[in-house]
Amino acid sequence: MNKDLSSVKALTFDVFGTVVDWRSSVIKELTELGEAKGITADWEAIADKWRGGYAPSMDKVRKGELPWKNIDELHRMVLDQLLNEFKISGLTEEETAHLNKAWHRLSPWPDSVEGLGRLKRKYIIATLSNGNISLLTNMAKHSGLPWDVILSSELAKHYKNDKEVYLTAASLLDLKPNEIMMCAAHQNDVLAARALGLKTAYISRPLEFGPDKPNDATDDMPYDIIADDIIDLADKLGV
Amino acid sequence: MNKDLSSVKALTFDVFGTVVDWRSSVIKELTELGEAKGITADWEAIADKWRGGYAPSMDKVRKGELPWKNIDELHRMVLDQLLNEFKISGLTEEETAHLNKAWHRLSPWPDSVEGLGRLKRKYIIATLSNGNISLLTNMAKHSGLPWDVILSSELAKHYKNDKEVYLTAASLLDLKPNEIMMCAAHQNDVLAARALGLKTAYISRPLEFGPDKPNDATDDMPYDIIADDIIDLADKLGV
Repeated sequence: MNKDLSSVKALTFDVFGTVVDWRSSVIKELTELGEAKGITADWEAIADKWRGGYAPSMDKVRKGELPWKNIDELHRMVLDQLLNEFKISGLTEEETAHLNKAWHRLSPWPDSVEGLGRLKRKYIIATLSNGNISLLTNMAKHSGLPWDVILSSELAKHYKNDKEVYLTAASLLDLKPNEIMMCAAHQNDVLAARALGLKTAYISRPLEFGPDKPNDATDDMPYDIIADDIIDLADKLGV
Repeated sequence: MNKDLSSVKALTFDVFGTVVDWRSSVIKELTELGEAKGITADWEAIADKWRGGYAPSMDKVRKGELPWKNIDELHRMVLDQLLNEFKISGLTEEETAHLNKAWHRLSPWPDSVEGLGRLKRKYIIATLSNGNISLLTNMAKHSGLPWDVILSSELAKHYKNDKEVYLTAASLLDLKPNEIMMCAAHQNDVLAARALGLKTAYISRPLEFGPDKPNDATDDMPYDIIADDIIDLADKLGV
């Protein structure tokens, strides 16, 4: 293990894409709901647009164009627009609300539960996600993710990659930046953490956006660890 | 099980006294430190005064006489006063800081880990403690407490029994008050929760304050469940 990493006491994880496979999970829920209700639609396109609508709506919160809304609320705003755009009707309010919580029921990548279990033996393992606390708690129970503590942008009332998110996590964990390693499959997330002095691990998830769209890995990534998955991260941290 | 309790989805627990035996744990740490450093003192009295100093110092924060300070900071304020009062010298800053974190290393009552493990199968199990997030996280790792999510007064910047603590927990869990059961060994805590519409369980801990000082149980307690310990709570909830 890299000597510089001996200071690390806690690993904070991005969740959507890094720990769970949101795309397959959401497509599966949409498809099953469509079959049950006799609705046909391009469910893959809807899943991608649902996820795609999330960054612009977070940016509106960031810029103060919207008051604070958590991810459940932002997901619902985008979902309502998409149901309209794709001319999907016939869902009751209860069915739409349940569908919106598909994001509470995302399945982990095949390595996530085993990898986190190994890392938990030595480190505090925490979420540090834009997902809200109830979403992350429900997901952990649904998917057996063994977090020690659930941290979220919701606690800072700021979204990543705003610095307040990382600094609030450090404050709540009572750790210095270099005692925390931010682990994510997205360069903007680990870069923002790195700029604040956190240690960083980039976890490659080439299938996050489906087989046809690459992830954002590049050849010159400056992170402390570059891992193929969370088991590989555990290997590289020697646990 | 009481039919009125079918709405309950999450159990929120007071921790000091309810889940962990702070008194024996703190006396043990003080005694061991005294032996290692060749210091003799009335460690039981110091432990009781340390715990006893915590409510008045929280009240100062509540009334705005002190700015927000978390429990680690309040414990340290009280500890420094006690070291002075009991004329204990010869501790380095590192030793004093480590001693202050004795509250991160409290041992569970014998039934706590088993009882929480059973309750976790059906319910979200959460802390709802005046302890800060890092204290509760470290304690969970130290003592094997299988929390789904760590909630704390620190997230509301209010101490129990202020209503903001319970309402912040409900908001973060995205649950209605009657979907949460507050579980505590102190009547003022469950009474405050009850006044807000939470379900309540009183857990009797007759030894919390030592063999000579009774707990606050009375004959006419109006709570949904009165349990002998956390295993008994699981029995009474049918899990």
